[in-house]
Amino acid sequence: MNSRETANVDEPRTVSYGDVEAAAARLANRAHRTPVFTSRAFDERAGGQVFFKCENLQRTGSFKFRGAFNALLQLPEEQQRRGVVTYSSGNHAQAVALAGKLLGVPATVVMPEDAPRVKLAATRAYGAEVVLYDRAKEEREEIGAKLKRERGLALVPPYDNPHVVAGQGTSAKELLEETGALDLLLVPCGGGGLLSGCAIAARVLSPGCRIVGVEPENADDAARSFQTGVLQTVENPDTIADGVRTPSLGRVTFPLVLRHVDDIVTVSEEAILRATRLLWERTKLVVEPTGALAAAALLEGAVALEPGGRIGVVLSGGNMDLGRLCALF
Amino acid sequence: MNSRETANVDEPRTVSYGDVEAAAARLANRAHRTPVFTSRAFDERAGGQVFFKCENLQRTGSFKFRGAFNALLQLPEEQQRRGVVTYSSGNHAQAVALAGKLLGVPATVVMPEDAPRVKLAATRAYGAEVVLYDRAKEEREEIGAKLKRERGLALVPPYDNPHVVAGQGTSAKELLEETGALDLLLVPCGGGGLLSGCAIAARVLSPGCRIVGVEPENADDAARSFQTGVLQTVENPDTIADGVRTPSLGRVTFPLVLRHVDDIVTVSEEAILRATRLLWERTKLVVEPTGALAAAALLEGAVALEPGGRIGVVLSGGNMDLGRLCALF
Repeated sequence: MNSRETANVDEPRTVSYGDVEAAAARLANRAHRTPVFTSRAFDERAGGQVFFKCENLQRTGSFKFRGAFNALLQLPEEQQRRGVVTYSSGNHAQAVALAGKLLGVPATVVMPEDAPRVKLAATRAYGAEVVLYDRAKEEREEIGAKLKRERGLALVPPYDNPHVVAGQGTSAKELLEETGALDLLLVPCGGGGLLSGCAIAARVLSPGCRIVGVEPENADDAARSFQTGVLQTVENPDTIADGVRTPSLGRVTFPLVLRHVDDIVTVSEEAILRATRLLWERTKLVVEPTGALAAAALLEGAVALEPGGRIGVVLSGGNMDLGRLCALF
Repeated sequence: MNSRETANVDEPRTVSYGDVEAAAARLANRAHRTPVFTSRAFDERAGGQVFFKCENLQRTGSFKFRGAFNALLQLPEEQQRRGVVTYSSGNHAQAVALAGKLLGVPATVVMPEDAPRVKLAATRAYGAEVVLYDRAKEEREEIGAKLKRERGLALVPPYDNPHVVAGQGTSAKELLEETGALDLLLVPCGGGGLLSGCAIAARVLSPGCRIVGVEPENADDAARSFQTGVLQTVENPDTIADGVRTPSLGRVTFPLVLRHVDDIVTVSEEAILRATRLLWERTKLVVEPTGALAAAALLEGAVALEPGGRIGVVLSGGNMDLGRLCALF
């Protein structure tokens, strides 16, 4: 990829495995190569071997750092000086804030007023300017577009961008390099950035692997979009998985999901809670409800499992208020 | 060490680094080689480099598996067939239960009625018989001795045993093999098994390293014993660190602590809570309050820190009811 041809980070185009490889080279020594955990408790429940890719242990506490850093690094110098703006329910915000700090790029972040306190605080702690909005009355995309126009900032969208998708795909690349071929890869799905990036990597690194996205029943736009082939939306869905309250797949991610993903399944709120708790108790890992979506699919039997199968599960993030956790349980 | 000479696991004797090495060889591929985590948030607070040895990620969720497995493996065959008994506030119980299951040794565990629910359930799930007692009215040592006598069981004490001490020392051995020399090693202290084992290993592997035990202010018997050189006791201390509610250091561990440890410091209940929470939020690790003791010493400034120092911190366990956590905060 020639960075001069892709100066505008919002320009839609497709993403190849070569883009994921290039992103991995850029992220080397900047992002963590997150560990892969196993758990006898989950192996027993799944009747196979489960490999957890621990993106909750990534810098800023989620996979989002991968895509944000990859995108910011490819801005022209002049744009890096002016800065970037993004909108996010939380994890992408922290990711852009830290990537901006590391690269000297001023970052402005549009966040909902009711975003988890720990995420607001962390975003500010990384030195970003936070602009709050009311999820019920305003559209974050509009606010982002306004700031972009008025301040000359580059928009770094949370998922619908080829550089972001390529960055997120490095997570599955690392996982498969460590585990070897898998039979099944389960990935949380909100806007589809992580899912499509991981699918692109898995297609090449583990050709026989079935790639399945997981979203909450209460925010099943991606599953409906996948099944009908027509982009479906959802508005302010009521789910504890606050990281996937996105309105729909995107212009970049929807075609990639249709092309590279085998299925999208949904899980109940109860299954998400159970998975969050079981991960907490048995792997000793703090995983936020959104991050536990793929594990919930295993527990709920939302996907057909071959006995003895090798299953990759992406734990996408771990940013959760302790107060919020306790309110949930 | 010749196992035929040490058939009785309660026989007191001293422990050398050679015993720790022998234990490490026995534990290879049976215990996890637990990971070492770092955290920028803790580095900043400590003004140095902090290395967390994650014994919360050990089998059964604490370091206790190391000592229990090492002790059971050295029983004569005849005794292995008859079985073992132990008493424990929780983590040692699970450790003996799993070690017994893996080695085919029937395990009976004496546990307080008010032990954390998750620990009772896990001990039973590993196939051990659980005998409950009332902490306010009964002495667990007496109940254990009675079962030993009546059923011909071997007693595997939670800390006051050379094989147990040698097993626990493998934790510091692994840590130092990974980090190289350290300036300071902080280790939680209850009965002193983990502390003395780690000190024996650190003396050899990092000769200049200052070795400091950490216990709650509310259960400061080891600190007082260390300072006076005379064994002090404490009765049913009121601390959230339920793993170190032990009455005193032991016949085996007290001399080892006096000989190999540089200091024992205490931390407040508030500092233990703050450390538990900060570990939770910043490292995404579930660490029980007892397991957070050494991290609390860093946060509370209970030990003098050299700027830029390299500090090892043993996170000793992660078994905690979610309900209990929420009640604490």
